[in-house]
Amino acid sequence: MQSLQEKASEWSGVNPNDAFAIDETNLYRKLGLQTFINLSTNFYNRVYDDEEEWFRSIFANSKKEDAIQNQYEFFVQRMGGPPLYSQRRGHPALIARHRPFPVTRQAAERWLHHMQQALESTTDIDSDSKIKLLNFFRHTAFFLVAGDELKNQKQSIACKHAASKPAAV
Amino acid sequence: MQSLQEKASEWSGVNPNDAFAIDETNLYRKLGLQTFINLSTNFYNRVYDDEEEWFRSIFANSKKEDAIQNQYEFFVQRMGGPPLYSQRRGHPALIARHRPFPVTRQAAERWLHHMQQALESTTDIDSDSKIKLLNFFRHTAFFLVAGDELKNQKQSIACKHAASKPAAV
Repeated sequence: MQSLQEKASEWSGVNPNDAFAIDETNLYRKLGLQTFINLSTNFYNRVYDDEEEWFRSIFANSKKEDAIQNQYEFFVQRMGGPPLYSQRRGHPALIARHRPFPVTRQAAERWLHHMQQALESTTDIDSDSKIKLLNFFRHTAFFLVAGDELKNQKQSIACKHAASKPAAV
Repeated sequence: MQSLQEKASEWSGVNPNDAFAIDETNLYRKLGLQTFINLSTNFYNRVYDDEEEWFRSIFANSKKEDAIQNQYEFFVQRMGGPPLYSQRRGHPALIARHRPFPVTRQAAERWLHHMQQALESTTDIDSDSKIKLLNFFRHTAFFLVAGDELKNQKQSIACKHAASKPAAV
């Protein structure tokens, strides 16, 4: 059975080395806190204004300012900065925290569309960092699509209509 | 509704500041790769030899050497070292990857019992690092107990016998 990482790589077209090239340099130190705040603000302004209602509605139960803070605190922590996210909310636990949302391939592509636009229109992000971030985001988005499938496996188990083989994670 | 972090703090008795004091210094640089390999080897030797069959059996479908590698690679990455875990397996996604296992409070306490013994019998871990690691482990263990409860919430939703309110994560 394919692992989460294998699925993420195949579906995103980004191999793990490129996805985690974000760790070659400390991008937090290179770009700074304000750049990540700007990026997440820019991103969620686009998401909450999305003309595609099906995508915009995924976020309807979250306050925009909370979404922005959760995202930039995670980015800062993951990119080598202070662990702002964990101090406030605990482990990122990315798949579990996305459980309430339908993370389909279509949603991943729409998320990436807005993030690419946000990256392009946020100043002070050099092109090398931009490529690294995009590869990380693309791989992660499809990692979460793979994680979303675990919900369906569990449904079968929960309802006892299928074999209760544990998910290979 | 209590967040994962709030549940983890209440049940473990460790507040987030103490849990994430591991980030005050780079423990990977302080302790080194070999110490983490030794710690995980020591830990899993105890687990796979546990006289408590109910706990030992949780690990029956995993190879000991895989369990050791997964654990020390995660520790190294989380404690400020190279991202060994993500390069090989993707995001830690701690809650999702513990889905196949029954992470009860009793299991958390047994895990911590073995880890405390392992910490005490692994050389080259100074007492300050030991306290930081134990606080992190204790908080994380109960964070995963809180995460384990999400499975039950989902069961209700999956079987359509209960309200389909998304989990507050």
